[in-house]
Amino acid sequence: METSGETQDGAAGSIGDWAERSADPGYRAAVLDLLGALAYGELSAFERLAEDAKLAPDLADKAALARMASAEFQHYQRLHDRLAEIGADPQEAMRPFVEPLELFHRMTAPSDWLEGLVKAYVGDAIATDFYREVAVRLDDDTRDLVLGVMSDTGHAQFAVDKVRQAIEADPRAGGRLALWGRRLMGEALSQAQRVVAERDALSNLLVGGVQVQGFDLVEVGKMFNRITEAHTKRMAALGLAS
Amino acid sequence: METSGETQDGAAGSIGDWAERSADPGYRAAVLDLLGALAYGELSAFERLAEDAKLAPDLADKAALARMASAEFQHYQRLHDRLAEIGADPQEAMRPFVEPLELFHRMTAPSDWLEGLVKAYVGDAIATDFYREVAVRLDDDTRDLVLGVMSDTGHAQFAVDKVRQAIEADPRAGGRLALWGRRLMGEALSQAQRVVAERDALSNLLVGGVQVQGFDLVEVGKMFNRITEAHTKRMAALGLAS
Repeated sequence: METSGETQDGAAGSIGDWAERSADPGYRAAVLDLLGALAYGELSAFERLAEDAKLAPDLADKAALARMASAEFQHYQRLHDRLAEIGADPQEAMRPFVEPLELFHRMTAPSDWLEGLVKAYVGDAIATDFYREVAVRLDDDTRDLVLGVMSDTGHAQFAVDKVRQAIEADPRAGGRLALWGRRLMGEALSQAQRVVAERDALSNLLVGGVQVQGFDLVEVGKMFNRITEAHTKRMAALGLAS
Repeated sequence: METSGETQDGAAGSIGDWAERSADPGYRAAVLDLLGALAYGELSAFERLAEDAKLAPDLADKAALARMASAEFQHYQRLHDRLAEIGADPQEAMRPFVEPLELFHRMTAPSDWLEGLVKAYVGDAIATDFYREVAVRLDDDTRDLVLGVMSDTGHAQFAVDKVRQAIEADPRAGGRLALWGRRLMGEALSQAQRVVAERDALSNLLVGGVQVQGFDLVEVGKMFNRITEAHTKRMAALGLAS
């Protein structure tokens, strides 16, 4: 465990533990936002995967999605319990993120099993990228929790396998799914930018840690660019143009 | 543990363990049917609870339903693993029960949150009654598993509390939900009778254990009567006429 005093390089340093950092109200507010967003994201992932399970072509696929949904729910539970443990109201912490996520889901309702798989894969991956960006700026306790709940639920590999098989069987499906992936990324970015613009404490944390004050659009833009690049690579892994 | 030789009274005796009983192909077929029906029932309960979570009036209720759905999935997993362990194909074992359960769900799609709660409560309870009737006729290993997965996931009490609160707030809701409960019971019985009529090994087990041969409509009728009586008592517990 690195405990150097150089806490602002972000890469490997520790900025201290929760007890130490949470004395700063701005930091505390940012972490509450972050855990609230993550908790609602997991609950929402549970719902989407359960929904997709209904589209599954057979019982084994149905059970596989139900298993992943169930794993997302366990993650939700850990975040919920942590919020309660640090004296926050979990429902209150989640509330600001309900509308942007529901809007995203309404704009991107999959019309079939494959679109559902690509959506879950792309969505999971964007979320993982985002939280990995954030994790380096977190106190040790919060970082451990965030990295723990971002751990793989087996969904990514499942989706990649199924989508590649489908494209092999019918290469024309690739064009349609590539368009779909682009649309998902666009909608995700626009909702994420909206959240960042509205949540000051959270955006301060994102653009450079607690020492940076004020909303820096350029820094946030760079982060979104990194996430977009990673998305392009993942679409290629699926065999899709992005 | 009772190990008396009086195995056919059903109430407290043991008929032996799986290794002993499964040598009888009729008994083995009946248990495969039973575990298959139960496994698909749990997977289906997962789906319905996840679906109902979308109707939840607030985030706490949504999370409560997601938690129960997740518990049903864990039960499914245990049944799936047991089927695999005794050399059965879990998907094959579940298949005969997919259509009757899906038909039941199509005939009884809840139109709101309260109808969903009453349905989950009534459905869970009928299933529990049914499997308790069956459990006394099972080998020790299978019985332990069946009773284990029928254990409470907290859903019944949650549904009772919410439904009673709703009827207190608006007594007219009681009349509508009472009708709904009656319809659910009717559809459940008609699908259950269809399954029993089609699955010989399973119905032999139901009507008196493996020694009884042939389909005894009178015995099955009596069992359904006992389940209907229990249903009437439960509806009263919800504050509903049945």
